[in-house]
Amino acid sequence: MKLPFPVLTPEEAALLIKDGSTVGFSGFTSTGQAKLIPTAIANHARTLHAAGKPFKINVVTGASTSAELDASLAEADAVGWRTPYQSCAAMRKSINAGKVHYFDMHLSQVQPWLRSGFLGPIHYAVLEAASVKPDGSVILTTSIGVTNTLARLAEKVIIEVNDAHPESILGLHDLYEPAEPPHRQPIPIVTVRDRVGSPVLQIPPEKILGIVRNHALDSVKDYDALDDATLAIGANVANFIVRERRAGRLPDGLPFQSGVGNIANAVTEAMAQNKEIPNFNLYSEVIQDGIFSLIKQGRVDFASGTAVSFTPRVLTELYQDWKKYSQHLVLRPQEISNSPEMVRRLGVITINTALEFDINGNVNSTHTLGRTLMNGIGGSGDFTRNAYLSIFTCPSIRKDGAISTIVPVCSHIDHNEHSVDVVVTEQGVADLRCKDPSQRAEEIIRNCVAPEYRDLLRAYVQSCGTVHAQVNTEKSAIFHQAFARYKDMRKAAELL
Amino acid sequence: MKLPFPVLTPEEAALLIKDGSTVGFSGFTSTGQAKLIPTAIANHARTLHAAGKPFKINVVTGASTSAELDASLAEADAVGWRTPYQSCAAMRKSINAGKVHYFDMHLSQVQPWLRSGFLGPIHYAVLEAASVKPDGSVILTTSIGVTNTLARLAEKVIIEVNDAHPESILGLHDLYEPAEPPHRQPIPIVTVRDRVGSPVLQIPPEKILGIVRNHALDSVKDYDALDDATLAIGANVANFIVRERRAGRLPDGLPFQSGVGNIANAVTEAMAQNKEIPNFNLYSEVIQDGIFSLIKQGRVDFASGTAVSFTPRVLTELYQDWKKYSQHLVLRPQEISNSPEMVRRLGVITINTALEFDINGNVNSTHTLGRTLMNGIGGSGDFTRNAYLSIFTCPSIRKDGAISTIVPVCSHIDHNEHSVDVVVTEQGVADLRCKDPSQRAEEIIRNCVAPEYRDLLRAYVQSCGTVHAQVNTEKSAIFHQAFARYKDMRKAAELL
Repeated sequence: MKLPFPVLTPEEAALLIKDGSTVGFSGFTSTGQAKLIPTAIANHARTLHAAGKPFKINVVTGASTSAELDASLAEADAVGWRTPYQSCAAMRKSINAGKVHYFDMHLSQVQPWLRSGFLGPIHYAVLEAASVKPDGSVILTTSIGVTNTLARLAEKVIIEVNDAHPESILGLHDLYEPAEPPHRQPIPIVTVRDRVGSPVLQIPPEKILGIVRNHALDSVKDYDALDDATLAIGANVANFIVRERRAGRLPDGLPFQSGVGNIANAVTEAMAQNKEIPNFNLYSEVIQDGIFSLIKQGRVDFASGTAVSFTPRVLTELYQDWKKYSQHLVLRPQEISNSPEMVRRLGVITINTALEFDINGNVNSTHTLGRTLMNGIGGSGDFTRNAYLSIFTCPSIRKDGAISTIVPVCSHIDHNEHSVDVVVTEQGVADLRCKDPSQRAEEIIRNCVAPEYRDLLRAYVQSCGTVHAQVNTEKSAIFHQAFARYKDMRKAAELL
Repeated sequence: MKLPFPVLTPEEAALLIKDGSTVGFSGFTSTGQAKLIPTAIANHARTLHAAGKPFKINVVTGASTSAELDASLAEADAVGWRTPYQSCAAMRKSINAGKVHYFDMHLSQVQPWLRSGFLGPIHYAVLEAASVKPDGSVILTTSIGVTNTLARLAEKVIIEVNDAHPESILGLHDLYEPAEPPHRQPIPIVTVRDRVGSPVLQIPPEKILGIVRNHALDSVKDYDALDDATLAIGANVANFIVRERRAGRLPDGLPFQSGVGNIANAVTEAMAQNKEIPNFNLYSEVIQDGIFSLIKQGRVDFASGTAVSFTPRVLTELYQDWKKYSQHLVLRPQEISNSPEMVRRLGVITINTALEFDINGNVNSTHTLGRTLMNGIGGSGDFTRNAYLSIFTCPSIRKDGAISTIVPVCSHIDHNEHSVDVVVTEQGVADLRCKDPSQRAEEIIRNCVAPEYRDLLRAYVQSCGTVHAQVNTEKSAIFHQAFARYKDMRKAAELL
C-alpha cells in the first residue's frame, strides 16, 4: 500500500525534534516503543553537544522503556524532565545525580494530566505501530500505555512501523478515551473481558510527519529461576487466599492484579497450582509469560492489561494463534487498566511488591534509604488504594540479612497504613485489617520479620512507650542509619 | 400512626445491647446520630463495671460523633474497637492510651468492608430517624454516612425517632447502594445534582427491636471568627484558582470538595467573593453553614454531601424552606459522596487541611509527632487520591512559631508526594506539579514556609547532598526531636 507519508531514516526523523520540546513516546514496561528513533535522537543530541549546542527534550511515556530509549537519552544527557516511571540504570543514575528532573506519577493520572494541560503541550508523539494506513489508522503493538492520548494531543506524530508485529493482531487493543470532566460518563466496562473502544488508533494524516521502518520484537528477557524465598512468598499468598475463601470473605469472580517480576510470577503460579483456588481472571497492568502459560492451561480465563511483556518465543505463539487468544486477552489504555473507577467496581485483589515496609503497615515502593530513586510508584497506587483487598509482598531480608525489609518507619512512604491490608514475606502473612498500629506491629513482627530482627523490632516498639502509632522520633530511623553507617541494619541495636 | 414496634426508654434500649457485640451507629461529623441511646449504653456499662462485670462494644459510625456517643462511651471504658474516625477529646485520650483499639479508615471504604465481612457481623444498628412507618420505611435526619448499609446488614435495629426533624424533609437523602463486586454496575451519577436512589430507607420491620423517642437538634456550634492567617489562606487558594483559570487549566463546571472547619470556611468564602470565579458546585462530604449561606446568595448552585453540619438556626431555615432548597442540596451515603469513581469522573478539585507537610510534598493529616492520633484521615484520602487537582492548606506555624507545620519529612504520612498537587499557607502557594523533589523543596520553602524557618530548612536540604528525595536519615526528624525535647522546633538548628 502506497502511504502518503514520507519514509524517513531514524536520523532524518531525529532531526525533526527540536531542542526543548516535549516528546511523548509510546511504550510501557519495555514493550511497544519505537526503538530506532530514540537512539537516533540521542545520537543527534551528542552531535549537537559536541558542537557546543544545547539539546534536551522532556520525555513522557506510558511507563518504563527499554535501553533504546531511557538509556540512550540519559547517557546522551538529552533529557530535561522525565515522567511517569522508569526502570533503567542509566536514567536512574541521571535522576539521582539531579541531572534529570524526574517526577513520579500514579500511572492512571498521566492521561488526565495530558488532557488538563498540567504537563504542558506535547510537541511530538513518537509511536511504534504494527501498521499504518493512508487514512492515519494505526494498529499498535505490544502496549498501549498513554499512546492513544499522546497521538491525539501531539502537534506532530512520527511512527516507527515495526513489521515484526503482524496486522492480523487487530483486536489486541481496546482504545477507549473518556471525555474530560465535567462531561465524563461512566466507563462502560463491567467485566474484565468487555471491549468498549476501537481496535485501531485514528490519527489525522496531516499530523503525521513521516514513518520509519523497523523489524524487531521487544527484547523481553526470561525471568530468573525462582529461589526458595520467592517460592515461599507465592505459597503464602495462595494459602492466605484459600483461608479467606474458606472464611467466606472472598466471593468468586474477583479479578487479580499482579505486579511485575519474579515474585509476581511466583504468586500467580502458586495460585494456579492450588486446587482450592478456582480459575481466575486478571485486571492488571503488565501481562507476563507466566500468565500466558496459565491461559494455555485454562487456569486464567481472561487477562486485561495495558502491555504484554512477552519474550519473543511467547509473543510469536500469541500472534500465530491470535484468533484463539483474542477470547482471553485484551490491552487497554493505562487510565483504563489502572482506573480507580474500574478497580473498585470490579473488586480487584491487588498484589504488589514492596521495597520495604514498616511495623505500622506503611509501604515504600520507590526509594532506597528514603533518598535514592529505584524505579517509581508505577501503577501500585492506582490498584492498592482502590482495591477490594490489597496485598504487598517482599522477602524479609536482603543482602544476606544486612537489610531487613521490615523497619520501624519506612524511609519513604508510597502506600500508607490506611491502604495496606496484608503483607507477606517468606516467613508468613500479616493480616493488618481491623488492627490498631500496636496490634499491627505485633502481627508483622511475629509473622513476617526474619528471626534475627524480631527482638530488635520488639525493643524498638518498647521504646515507643504508650502511643497510638508505633513511632519514636528519636529512634525511627535507626535501621537506615545503621545501614548508611555500617552497611548492616543489625547494628541498629547499638543505636537503640 | 400506631407503630408495631415497642416504644422503649433509652435505658430499656441499652439493655438490649450485649457485651462484646459490634454496634453500628448512624452519624457523621456530629450530625444525624442517636443521642439518648449511646449515653444510656454508657451508663449501663458503668453499672456493670461497678458490679465487676465486663461490658464493651465495638463501634462503627459514618465518621465522628458528638459527645453523647464517643465521649460517653470512652469515658465509661465501654469500647473495644472503634472505626473509622473520631474527633472527640475523651475518645482520643482512650485511643492514645491504648485502651481503645482504633483503626483509621478511608471513609469510602467502610461500606465495602461492612459488606465484605472484613469488619465482622454488625449485631445492632442504632439509628436516628425523622420518622418511621409501620412497614419499616424510615426518613433519616442530618447525615447518611454508612447508615443505609448498617441498617441492611445489622441483625437487629433500634431507632431513635427524633421529631425535631420534620417528615417534610423527604428528598434530603438519596440512598443508593451498589452491588458487591463482581456484580457491580457503574454508579449512574454524572452531575453533582443527580438523584439516583431512594429518599427513604427500608428496614424489614421484623428486625426493628423498638424505638426511642427524642426531640433535639444536633448541637452544632458556630465556627470561630476567622483570624488573619486563615483569611490569607482562603485568599491564596482563591487567587491560585483564578490563575489556573486564566492559564486555561481549569475548565468551568468542575465541582469542589472542601474539608471541615475554619480554613474550609475561609476558602469557600474567599472563592465566593472573587468575581473571577464563576458560581460553583460542591461534591463534598460535610456541608457547613457557610455553604448554605452561599446557596442563598446564589454563588453555590448545588451541594452534594453526606451530612449537613448546620447550626440549629440554619437547619431550621433549611427545613422551613426545604422545597426550595431541595433544588440545591442532597445527601448521599459516604461510599458515594467519597467514591473514587465519582471523584475522578466529576473532576473534583479537593481542598483539605493538613496537620503538617514536608518539603518533599508529603502530608500528615492524622498524628502529632507521628505518634499521637488527632482525629483520623476521614475522607481526605478518598478525595485527594482521585482528584482533578488536590490542594492542601494549613498555617505555616502554630504555637507562636514553636511549631513549623512544614518539616523535613512528615512524622506520619497520610497523603504522599504522588497525590499532593498544591500546598497553601498564609505565606503563599507552592505548586508541586511536574517538579522533582528538589524543585518542590525550593518551591515550598520560598512560598509557604514562615520566614524564621526558611534558613533552617534550606540548611537541611544542603545536608541531604545530591539525592533524589530530600531525605537525610540522620537528620530527617530534627524538627520533631527539637519539639519533643525543647517544645520549640526552632531549636532544630542545634541538631542539624
